Amino acid sequence: MTESLRRSRDVPALVARAREGDPRAVARLVSLVENGDPSLPELAAALAPHTGQAQIIGLTGSPGVGKSTITNELVRAYRAEGRRVGVLAVDPSSPFTGGAILGDRVRMQDHATDPGVYIRSMSSRGHLGGLAAATPQAVRVLEGAGCEVVLVETVGVGQAEVEVASLADTTLVLLAPGMGDAIQAVKAGILEVADVFVVNKADRDGVDATYHDIQGMIGLGERGPGDWRPQVVRSVAVRGEGIDGVVAAIAKHRAWLEEHGELQPRRERRAAVEVEEIALGTLRVRIGYLREGTELQALAAQVAQGALDPYAAAAALLKSLDRSGPLDQPVPLDGG
Amino acid sequence: MTESLRRSRDVPALVARAREGDPRAVARLVSLVENGDPSLPELAAALAPHTGQAQIIGLTGSPGVGKSTITNELVRAYRAEGRRVGVLAVDPSSPFTGGAILGDRVRMQDHATDPGVYIRSMSSRGHLGGLAAATPQAVRVLEGAGCEVVLVETVGVGQAEVEVASLADTTLVLLAPGMGDAIQAVKAGILEVADVFVVNKADRDGVDATYHDIQGMIGLGERGPGDWRPQVVRSVAVRGEGIDGVVAAIAKHRAWLEEHGELQPRRERRAAVEVEEIALGTLRVRIGYLREGTELQALAAQVAQGALDPYAAAAALLKSLDRSGPLDQPVPLDGG
Repeated sequence: MTESLRRSRDVPALVARAREGDPRAVARLVSLVENGDPSLPELAAALAPHTGQAQIIGLTGSPGVGKSTITNELVRAYRAEGRRVGVLAVDPSSPFTGGAILGDRVRMQDHATDPGVYIRSMSSRGHLGGLAAATPQAVRVLEGAGCEVVLVETVGVGQAEVEVASLADTTLVLLAPGMGDAIQAVKAGILEVADVFVVNKADRDGVDATYHDIQGMIGLGERGPGDWRPQVVRSVAVRGEGIDGVVAAIAKHRAWLEEHGELQPRRERRAAVEVEEIALGTLRVRIGYLREGTELQALAAQVAQGALDPYAAAAALLKSLDRSGPLDQPVPLDGG
Repeated sequence: MTESLRRSRDVPALVARAREGDPRAVARLVSLVENGDPSLPELAAALAPHTGQAQIIGLTGSPGVGKSTITNELVRAYRAEGRRVGVLAVDPSSPFTGGAILGDRVRMQDHATDPGVYIRSMSSRGHLGGLAAATPQAVRVLEGAGCEVVLVETVGVGQAEVEVASLADTTLVLLAPGMGDAIQAVKAGILEVADVFVVNKADRDGVDATYHDIQGMIGLGERGPGDWRPQVVRSVAVRGEGIDGVVAAIAKHRAWLEEHGELQPRRERRAAVEVEEIALGTLRVRIGYLREGTELQALAAQVAQGALDPYAAAAALLKSLDRSGPLDQPVPLDGG
């Protein structure tokens, strides 16, 4: 029974079970997303009516800042409010480190027996549009399963992590004293996407310096009089200290989004990126079919010899793409 | 004169000057590539007849392993053989750190007055197909300027760096004792692309452990009896020690590629990736035009509300792309 579920692609049945709260069905659906399963369009259609309501919170920060501890505490806080919570731990950097993230989840076993909490890790392996497209699908699965709050956690402060974290309604960036994270954050463009900075491990030396560094950088950012100014809060998550401040900052940002009519535009911009990435992923697959044929290979051979330039070759490839049939339909088997 | 050159987009004139050995024309052409200038197709066409012959060597490794020192020594070695050398320092991680790489180049001033050496750094800012497409164009500029050897150097051992370094005929991965690089290299998939490992700073403690680690990992790699087994060499680049071994390992790999008829297929695979990335970049721009119109925005609004799923929205977007005119032609101004 469990084994058949683990391999099932019966999307309507899986969605029905996920909606009834079966965690194995939720797990299976996230796996389908992760692997870029061909059933994804069907899954997306089945989930759509149940989505668009959950509060999505993104968290990012370097390894060691206490991300999973804070996530754990946030889960506790939202559960105390009676809200159903999903956690999606995403690793954009490498398919090989998925295990490490999952290992971190051990601490989350606080919530392992709570039926109001789903915790899933995800890497990007097979999805057409990469994590930028896969993450929102996985969030939809959790939303479809009844989660009212979804925490999307990424490791690191690189651009891929920022991209994932910024798929949220509210994006938290975690820092710790003495890790040089403030500089890293600026480099990676985090200042542009962070809504709340959490200086964790605030019992350590250097906390004031980190706090002032980040306040200084926020001060340097360009923003108009009506714009949101990123909040900076302190916490010592291992002792549960400051979590109420984190929750309050998230709520304040959420209220600001609603008051300023920003929530819906933000979600629409996010949906636009998602749709665009899926469309490009589809085109990538279709070009892959042309690659299977001799078309691209013949062009590449000419380019390698200097007989043709790569832009002219790309134009020729696009011409074959044009001839390969309607772009929104599956590619014909003869490769066009 | 210099100022007008710095802003020139007169591609035929710039290519003619670059071929005569004017370093400012070379610099300007690399800038055009870096910025994704609209003149790139014209530039590529002008360069094509002069390309396909240079030996391309990729170098990657974490900051601090001595990459620029080794590059410097390799330039010296190839100049001693009378070959013209180009160095392209690429930063895939962030547009903000381009300056840091350029700073490293100060050490390269050994070669600053040598007319047989071109040194350029590059970030990825504007290029359509990202660095995977931009780097080969910049290499072509250096080749068009008469370089017989082009060293492509990237910082770091992440996947983006590996991607860039693997655009070479021969890919070198630099390690240093005690930096945990061997593990990083495996994570980032470097074992699959490295042709030569250089254990630099070989006068330090832990060099034997690093050497054996990497040999062990090479031993675990799957390869057939006719396949290349990555070489591992040691160097102390700051003292010029072991560079002859590095040069010999590169030459050995090059000879192996030629003997096994692997050089041309490798270059063709590389050209195929390049052409594909340019084509996808063009499609991305075209979808961007659709985004400017109301099409994508209207679809995104429905997705955000759960009224439409993102795959159905992507299919609708692809249908408009189809209607927007021939894909190999510039998009019509009305956005289709």
